Amino acid sequence: MRDPTVVFGPSGRKTTIERGASILEAADRVGIRITSDCGGQGQCGKCRVIISGKGALGRLTASELVHLRRFDVDIGYRLACQAVIINDIVVKVPRESRIGERKFQAEGLERAVDINPMVRKTHLTISDVIMQERKPTTEKILHALEESGLQDIRFSRWALRNLPDDLESAGKGLTATIWDGVEIISVESGDTSNRLFGVALDIGTSKIVGHLVDLFDGGTLAVASFGNPQDVYGEDVMSRISFAIKAPENTERLHRLLINGVNQVLQMLCFEADVEPQEVYEAVVVGNTLMHHLFHGLRPDSLAHAPFAPLIRKGMKTDAGKLGAFIHQVGVLYTPPLVAGFVGSDGVADLLATGMYDSKEPALLVDIGTNTEVFAGDRTGLEACSCASGPAFEGAHISHGMKAMSGAIERLRIDPETYEVTYKTIGSIEPVGICGSAMIDALAEMWRCGLVDRFGHLNLDAETQRMKVTGTRGEYVLVSPEATRTGKEITINQNDIQELLLAKAAIYAACTIMLKRKGLRSDDILSVYVAGAFGANLDPWNAITIGMLPEVPPEKISFVGNTAVTGAKMILLSKEAMRTAERTLDRISYHELSLNPDFNKEFLDAVFIPHRDQGRFPTTRRAPHSQQY
Amino acid sequence: MRDPTVVFGPSGRKTTIERGASILEAADRVGIRITSDCGGQGQCGKCRVIISGKGALGRLTASELVHLRRFDVDIGYRLACQAVIINDIVVKVPRESRIGERKFQAEGLERAVDINPMVRKTHLTISDVIMQERKPTTEKILHALEESGLQDIRFSRWALRNLPDDLESAGKGLTATIWDGVEIISVESGDTSNRLFGVALDIGTSKIVGHLVDLFDGGTLAVASFGNPQDVYGEDVMSRISFAIKAPENTERLHRLLINGVNQVLQMLCFEADVEPQEVYEAVVVGNTLMHHLFHGLRPDSLAHAPFAPLIRKGMKTDAGKLGAFIHQVGVLYTPPLVAGFVGSDGVADLLATGMYDSKEPALLVDIGTNTEVFAGDRTGLEACSCASGPAFEGAHISHGMKAMSGAIERLRIDPETYEVTYKTIGSIEPVGICGSAMIDALAEMWRCGLVDRFGHLNLDAETQRMKVTGTRGEYVLVSPEATRTGKEITINQNDIQELLLAKAAIYAACTIMLKRKGLRSDDILSVYVAGAFGANLDPWNAITIGMLPEVPPEKISFVGNTAVTGAKMILLSKEAMRTAERTLDRISYHELSLNPDFNKEFLDAVFIPHRDQGRFPTTRRAPHSQQY
Repeated sequence: MRDPTVVFGPSGRKTTIERGASILEAADRVGIRITSDCGGQGQCGKCRVIISGKGALGRLTASELVHLRRFDVDIGYRLACQAVIINDIVVKVPRESRIGERKFQAEGLERAVDINPMVRKTHLTISDVIMQERKPTTEKILHALEESGLQDIRFSRWALRNLPDDLESAGKGLTATIWDGVEIISVESGDTSNRLFGVALDIGTSKIVGHLVDLFDGGTLAVASFGNPQDVYGEDVMSRISFAIKAPENTERLHRLLINGVNQVLQMLCFEADVEPQEVYEAVVVGNTLMHHLFHGLRPDSLAHAPFAPLIRKGMKTDAGKLGAFIHQVGVLYTPPLVAGFVGSDGVADLLATGMYDSKEPALLVDIGTNTEVFAGDRTGLEACSCASGPAFEGAHISHGMKAMSGAIERLRIDPETYEVTYKTIGSIEPVGICGSAMIDALAEMWRCGLVDRFGHLNLDAETQRMKVTGTRGEYVLVSPEATRTGKEITINQNDIQELLLAKAAIYAACTIMLKRKGLRSDDILSVYVAGAFGANLDPWNAITIGMLPEVPPEKISFVGNTAVTGAKMILLSKEAMRTAERTLDRISYHELSLNPDFNKEFLDAVFIPHRDQGRFPTTRRAPHSQQY
Repeated sequence: MRDPTVVFGPSGRKTTIERGASILEAADRVGIRITSDCGGQGQCGKCRVIISGKGALGRLTASELVHLRRFDVDIGYRLACQAVIINDIVVKVPRESRIGERKFQAEGLERAVDINPMVRKTHLTISDVIMQERKPTTEKILHALEESGLQDIRFSRWALRNLPDDLESAGKGLTATIWDGVEIISVESGDTSNRLFGVALDIGTSKIVGHLVDLFDGGTLAVASFGNPQDVYGEDVMSRISFAIKAPENTERLHRLLINGVNQVLQMLCFEADVEPQEVYEAVVVGNTLMHHLFHGLRPDSLAHAPFAPLIRKGMKTDAGKLGAFIHQVGVLYTPPLVAGFVGSDGVADLLATGMYDSKEPALLVDIGTNTEVFAGDRTGLEACSCASGPAFEGAHISHGMKAMSGAIERLRIDPETYEVTYKTIGSIEPVGICGSAMIDALAEMWRCGLVDRFGHLNLDAETQRMKVTGTRGEYVLVSPEATRTGKEITINQNDIQELLLAKAAIYAACTIMLKRKGLRSDDILSVYVAGAFGANLDPWNAITIGMLPEVPPEKISFVGNTAVTGAKMILLSKEAMRTAERTLDRISYHELSLNPDFNKEFLDAVFIPHRDQGRFPTTRRAPHSQQY
C-alpha cells in the first residue's frame, strides 16, 4: 500500500509521507511554515488547519477537543500537530496559522518584503452558545475577534450600518475586514477571506498608472493606465500650478478631474481582474508633490514661489469615501510622505523599491521624466534634488519624437562604415517615430561615427546621403519614407540634438552635484538605478557616452522601470514598508538645485558630448558600438 | 499715594496690593492659580500672563528676556512672577497658564467637574526666524505646537484644505483647534481662543433639547428645543421601530428627519447666542437607544424582538460632516454608551450627573417618561431596568392632561373640609389642563380627603357637587368652566385615575425589583433622585402617598430635572467625565423586567393607593395635606 499524498492549498504544494505522520511534519517537508508556539506538543492550539472530507486522518485527540470548538470541528478544523495522516488528503492552511512565509519580490529588483498588509480579513465562527446570548451582535463579533487574539477593535460607522442581515443565523460564520488591527471596515457573512485586494497608483502629470494587487499573495492581477484628465489645463506641472493659483475654485476643479481619472483606472482594474470595487480596501497613491496636493484637494499655492515648500510633507491617510474614490467606502487611501516641492512621494517609493535608504553601499538613483529626480547616498544619508530636464526624452520638442509606445523606435545602431541605420521598434512594426532610449542611441552612435562633434554640431560634410540640409537646418535621416508607417521620413535635426544635449546636461549636472554634496566620486558608486518609463530599453554605454550619467562600469547601471509603482506596491503589501516610508524623510537632505551657485557651470560644462572636460569620461572613447538590429 | 489695583480678566476678580508685589502674588490673593513649576523663581517660564498698556509694571527682567520671545513681549506677555506692579493694571491669565481652577457645577446637583474639554484652542505665534525657513507651513505650526508642549499632532484634511491665506504674513499669530491633543480640526488666523463652543443634546422621542455651552468657562449661553420631526411615524418608541423595520429605507428616512430636527435646534442655539456654527466643535448627544441608533443611521431591527439588544453599546464618535450636522465640519459628535435596548445613553448621563456610579451611599434614580428608567445601587454596582410606564404623566390618555407647559396646572390642593380645589399654573395664567406633577397631587389629595378609595374608585357619595357622574363614568371637577382659559371644566375621571394607577404601579414595581436585586431595603437608600421633565414641581410626599416611590423620608428625595442634559454637559466639559461614561457600563447590571417572573405580581400589588400591602407605607397616612395655592 503506497504512502498517502498530502496536498496543501492554495499553493498546491504536494508530498507523500509515511502513514502516521502529522500534518505539521508534512507541511515542514514542503517548506510551509505553520505557527506552532509549543513545538508540536498540542498545547498552544495555534496550528489550526482545515481539511476537506473525513476518514483520511486519525481521530480527534484530547488536545484537539480542548483547543477546537465543536463548530470548528464540524467545518473541518484540526490541529496540524495532532492530526495523523492515514490517507490522501487536501489541507488548507488558513492565514492565521501561517508564519510570514509569503514575500513580495519586486520585478527586476532584489528587494523583497514580507507580506503583511495594513488591511486583513479574519474569518470568524461564533459558537451557538454565544449566539444565544443576549448581548449585542457587535459584542459577539468583538468577542470572537478577541478569541483570535485581536483586541481593542472598534467598528466603523459604515460597518455598523451595513452588517449583513443573516449574521445571527449564519452557521457559515462571518468575515471581518480590519484596518491595522484597530478598526473594522466591514463585516461580510460567510468566508470571504480570500478576496482582499489593494491598488498601487502612480499619478503622473500626464498619466495615471494602477496595479491591482492580491493582498494575500502579492500577485498583480491587472495593470491599467489612463491619461491625466487635467491635461486640458496644461501639459506640465508649472502650467497646472499657474492655473490652480488663479482662483481658489480651480484647485477644486483640478482635484475633481484627478479623482475622475483615478476612478477610471480603478474601474479598468476591477473590470480586468473581475474584482468588485468594494473588495478593494486600500490604495497606496504616489506621485509628484503637485499631484499629491491636487489628489487631496490641497491648494498648491506654496509650490508657485520660492522656497517651493509643499503644504505638508507627512504621509496622509483618508477614507476613500471622503475623496469619492471607487474602492470600498471605508477603504483607506494612503499617500506616502513627500520629500519637497519638486520631489514627491514617487521619490520615496523609488528609494523603497531600490532599498537605497537602507543600503551600506553608496548608490545613485535617477528617475527620468520631465522633471528628473536624483538621489545619491546610502543608509547614512541621502542627497536629493530635482531638475527640470524637459520633456525631450518623452518625445516632446523633438521633431519625430514620441512616447515609448507601439511603433516607436526604441533601440538604434549606425554602421560606422556605411552610416546605415538599423533599429528595433516597440511592437516590431514599421516605425512611426523615435522614443527616448533610441534618441540616446542615436546621439551616441552619431558621435561615434563622427556624424556630430563634441559640441553637438552635425557634420554636414559626412559622406552619406542621409545627411542633408533642409532650409538652413542640417538633419540626418534615420529611416527613409518607404520604410515608415506614415510614409514620411524619420530624421533627427540640429534642433533635436540641441534639446537632447540640454536635457542630458541637466541630468548629469544634478547627478554631479548630488555626488559632490554626499562627498562621493563616481568610482565610489556601486549601483546606478535608472528609473522612468523608458528605462528598460536604455543602453547603459550610450547613456554614459552622451554624458547623461557619470562614467561608471556599465554593469553597475540597472534599469529598474517604474520604481514608483513598485515602491507603492511594497507599501501596500507591508506595514513595515509603510513605516519605513514614513521614516525615510529623516535620512533625506533635499537640495534646491535652482539656488545652487555651482549648478549653472556644471550644466553648461555638460552641454558637450560627453562633457567639456573629457577627463571625466576617460574610457568613453573605447565604448563599443551598439549591436546591430 | 494709594496702592495699585489689579483686575484679572476674564473673571474680573480684583485686588489692591502694595507697590512692588508681583502679579503672581496678586493672583494668589484673589484665588487665581497660575502655573508656576519653579515656585516663582523665574526659571520655568510657565506663568505667562498678558497685560494691556505699558508703564504699570517694572522693567522686563533677565529671566523674562530668556523665556519670552520678542514677539510675545510686543503683544503684552510678561511672566507673572517677574513682573512687578507699579500702577493700576488689567491682567489676562491665558488658559495655558491656569491651573485647572475652573469647575462646572451642575444646577441643583452637588456634582462638579474640572473644565477640561476634549477640544481645545491654542493661540500660537510663529517667530520671524521660523517664518523665513523653507519648511512647509504645516511643519512651522507643528513646531510652534511642540514648543507649547503639544506633540505628535496630525492635521485633518479639512484643516489643510482651509488654512487661512494670510498665515505666512501674520504678525497676529494663529489659533489651532485641537481634538484630544491628537488632531488639528482647524487653523484660524489671529487669536480666536476665546471662541470655543460645544452643544449638549438630549434627543427624546418627542422632543430634542439642546444647550449651547462655552467650553472655556462652562457657561450655558442658550437653550432651545424642537419637536422630534419623526413624530409623523408614531408618538412612541415602539411605533417608530415598527415603521423602521418595515423597509430598510425607512431607517434612512427616520435618520434624516432626526438630523433635520437636530439641525433646527443647533441653528436656534447659534442664533440665540450669536455664535457661528463653525465655532461649535463638539456635540455630546444622549438619548434612548432607538434615538441613538437612528441618529447614527443604524438599523434598529434588533430592538424589535427579544432579547431587545442594541446593535452596539460602546460610545461612538463621528465627524459632524459625515452626519451633516450643522456644527464645524470636522467637529466631533459623541454619543456615550448605551446600557441596553431600552436604557439609553440618557441613563448613563443620569448616572454621571447624580454621581451615583461613584457614590459610597446607596441611591435610587428614577427618570420618568413614557419609558421610565430606574437605577439602584452605589459604586459597587448598579442595577438598571426600564419599564413602560406609559405617557399618562406626560398628559396623554388623560382627559384633561397636558405637557408641563404654559397654562398647565402644576400643583394642586383639595381642602379636606370643603373639598375646594386650589392650584398653581405654569405661567400663572388661567388653567388649560393638568400636567404630571398635579395629577400626582390630585390623586394623593383625593385619597386623603376620601374622594377615592384604596382601589382608586371614586367615592360617588362624597358630599360635594364637584363629584358627578357623566354617562356611566364618575368624574371630579377640579376647575369650573368660568375659571378656565378654554371655558370648559377641567376634571379627573375614573379612567384617568386608572391610567395613573397603572403608570405609578409600573414605576413602583420597577423600583422595588431593582432594590431587591441589589439587596437593599428602602431604609438603606440615602438618596432618591427623580429626573424627567416634570420633576422640579413634584411633591415628594404626594409621590410617596400614591405609592409611586417607595416610602423614604421625603427629604431624601431630590428633583434633579433633566439630568440627561446635565450629564451630557459634564461629558462635553470634561475628558475625565467622558472616560467615566465609557467605564460606567462595567458597573451596570441590566435587568430585562419583562422577563422577570416577579414583575407581574409586584405590579398588580401596586395598583392600589398606596399599595395592596399597607405595611410597606407605614407613615403615609400621617402625610400632611398639600399647602394651599
